[in-house]
Amino acid sequence: MNNKVTIFENVTVITMNKDKDIIENGVVAFQGNKIIYVGNSDCKESLFKENKYEIEVIDGEDGILMPGMINCHTHASMVPFRSLADDCKDRLKRYLFPLEQRLVNEKLTYIGAKYAVAEMLLGGVTTFCDMYYFEDEVAKATKELNMRGILCETIVNFPSPDSKEAFGGLNYSVDFIEKWRNDALITPGIAPHAPYTNTDESLKEAYNISKKYNVPITMHVAEMDYELKEYVEKYNLTPVEYLNKLGVLDSNFIAAHTILVNDDDIKILKENGVGVSHNIGANAKGAKGVAPIIKMKKEGINVGLGTDGPMSGNTLDILTQMSQVGKVHKLFNNDRTLLPSIELVEMGTIGGAKVLGIDKEIGSIEVGKKADLTLIETKSVNMQPIYDYYAAIVYSANAGNVDLVVVDGKVVVKNKKLLSGNFLEIRKSLLNLQDKINKVAREL
Amino acid sequence: MNNKVTIFENVTVITMNKDKDIIENGVVAFQGNKIIYVGNSDCKESLFKENKYEIEVIDGEDGILMPGMINCHTHASMVPFRSLADDCKDRLKRYLFPLEQRLVNEKLTYIGAKYAVAEMLLGGVTTFCDMYYFEDEVAKATKELNMRGILCETIVNFPSPDSKEAFGGLNYSVDFIEKWRNDALITPGIAPHAPYTNTDESLKEAYNISKKYNVPITMHVAEMDYELKEYVEKYNLTPVEYLNKLGVLDSNFIAAHTILVNDDDIKILKENGVGVSHNIGANAKGAKGVAPIIKMKKEGINVGLGTDGPMSGNTLDILTQMSQVGKVHKLFNNDRTLLPSIELVEMGTIGGAKVLGIDKEIGSIEVGKKADLTLIETKSVNMQPIYDYYAAIVYSANAGNVDLVVVDGKVVVKNKKLLSGNFLEIRKSLLNLQDKINKVAREL
Repeated sequence: MNNKVTIFENVTVITMNKDKDIIENGVVAFQGNKIIYVGNSDCKESLFKENKYEIEVIDGEDGILMPGMINCHTHASMVPFRSLADDCKDRLKRYLFPLEQRLVNEKLTYIGAKYAVAEMLLGGVTTFCDMYYFEDEVAKATKELNMRGILCETIVNFPSPDSKEAFGGLNYSVDFIEKWRNDALITPGIAPHAPYTNTDESLKEAYNISKKYNVPITMHVAEMDYELKEYVEKYNLTPVEYLNKLGVLDSNFIAAHTILVNDDDIKILKENGVGVSHNIGANAKGAKGVAPIIKMKKEGINVGLGTDGPMSGNTLDILTQMSQVGKVHKLFNNDRTLLPSIELVEMGTIGGAKVLGIDKEIGSIEVGKKADLTLIETKSVNMQPIYDYYAAIVYSANAGNVDLVVVDGKVVVKNKKLLSGNFLEIRKSLLNLQDKINKVAREL
Repeated sequence: MNNKVTIFENVTVITMNKDKDIIENGVVAFQGNKIIYVGNSDCKESLFKENKYEIEVIDGEDGILMPGMINCHTHASMVPFRSLADDCKDRLKRYLFPLEQRLVNEKLTYIGAKYAVAEMLLGGVTTFCDMYYFEDEVAKATKELNMRGILCETIVNFPSPDSKEAFGGLNYSVDFIEKWRNDALITPGIAPHAPYTNTDESLKEAYNISKKYNVPITMHVAEMDYELKEYVEKYNLTPVEYLNKLGVLDSNFIAAHTILVNDDDIKILKENGVGVSHNIGANAKGAKGVAPIIKMKKEGINVGLGTDGPMSGNTLDILTQMSQVGKVHKLFNNDRTLLPSIELVEMGTIGGAKVLGIDKEIGSIEVGKKADLTLIETKSVNMQPIYDYYAAIVYSANAGNVDLVVVDGKVVVKNKKLLSGNFLEIRKSLLNLQDKINKVAREL
């Protein structure tokens, strides 16, 4: 094993461990990709005086060291379309699908993913769950920038950017999973787009692939009003009941959105061990409704946070989501005590890890876990004073306060700059796509 | 007149003028505190070749130059209490008033105001409307950092930090208004805290002072559920109807919050020319409800945006509010087309200027107006791509993207650093207050 140890000093450690310990003037050390010490500064010397390590010390300068944040649902490669057709009615069918049909290819997917991964890292997100096309390109981009990804190829009932035939994603997924299943950073998975864009057969086949390889399966569930209407009218079942009857729900299942769910649906999700990605920013902007996560959490369902694609949610960081989740649920339930900041930070870290089924590996700062760490600086004007670290993370911080990020033991962001890639080149590639996108968008 | 002219180049100008002109590759010039040119880069040479000006050119580096944003309602000096008692029930009476009684003095008010003014400037806000105690200290701090302030001394029916007697703010206000009424940056005003913390007499006297000096009067109106209940039970009138009956509503009146208002209230507000500060971030976090601004705007009421105090809303910038206003109203009204980005930028700029009654002076980038300008950089990862400048401002930008700010013709923020004051000293003064505040807060 690597004898290099990296030590964070002068930080307040928000561990998000079981006891939710906060360590002021704390020290965190990692070796290789594993955390090997979490404690008080006093203990450091005795631990490391043995002189058998090559030690690098990072001065956290009174920052907040928290677990790397987790984005449980996005379509990273859509970042080239960000800020297009905001505020438009029926945007999914009028703009989004046609744009994808005409513009999405391997190159755009790779360039978009790379930019989005850079953006997530710069915003303190260390793991994301993606649903898109050409996931092999997303995997390449993610790996190159040293981010952790649960990457799931989309299955739809129409020809897609990476398949002339409907349901081409099924074959793609098998190859994709075989290729990446043993990677340290990439977990391949499968993503039927939604119940209403699939058939019983495609849903079952996707489920069987997920089962065979024991990989995540993720789907948009109960997101759209017309989706609920269709299932109730056709089958007298909610989308969740329908999926349950098909037998495709299990603990590998990550349900995105789950807005239009009733109490019975929530029980079904719980019984099957389904995790939920709550994507409030995009759901609010799209006027889709408020997922009943207070009830879900009471039932014991794991709930994490997602941004949705950057054409829906515009930003890809999780800090922005935490504050919105708190505010919207307090407002909708007429109760300012709901979802205190600690619960919001939990959903953005260890809660998200549980949803993705990797909470034994990441999501908290504990000895033995992977070194996925985010340092929030507290020097900027918006960050002071701090009486409650959770409140400062949730209601004061923005993505611009993320100072340093470690993924799998590697420093990928330092002094707010990307270290694991050339940001100016990544940005240039993205901007080169813009003229063509603009031209196509104007024709829609 | 000063012969120095400052010219912005390489910017996209979001004018927010009547036609909502956007000038790509635009040029804006100001001389003294006035904007003297807004147009295309082509025109620059002919305009300035006369060689009679001392010219300073600022390269905007493809940034977005917009009118300085306007915060229509805050309590700036409360920033020392930020992140205290978030998520607590009945926080106003349990924490906020007691904290103020025990801790607020001239020094804290000055230090808090100075920090908050620095924060607003760094976040692109160039004008704010304040309601607090010791407003003379707020005025000093605001003036020192060269910000524009509508500063209003609070009137309440109990002894306040700056008065042993109830309603001491009435006398304070007269002196304060006399002192500052001719200042270039400070507009003094008067602020009865709320209907329920005043009497008919104090409300009328405050109104008469506002009338005599023709200065703004601002008040929390229809913010609290218990406020509405009390007025309906006692008088069978809503708070707005009550204030109207008293005769204290007019075009100098800035109503903050106005959440619990009905259609008749909205008509009353319109008829009296009252402007409204919509403070959605704080209203959501406090679970107070959603002010019906869609209806208000339809009736022709001027609506601006406010952050409320930093103990309620945590951040003091207006960019954060714009996005929240859009999302919450789309969600509550189940309509994603509501409040398109252009309307949100309008509320944060010229709309706010109308609410404060100074739209002839500020709020848009037009020749003859005061040079209050905010430059948003577009180099950061979250800012690209841009297809719609309004959407980029509302849904992509955060306060950390504000690069340069001009107030009244003076550059107060450059390269994201405060130029008009020593930020490290301002920060140190704030942090020095923290131990004592912590001690008192623990006793509550």
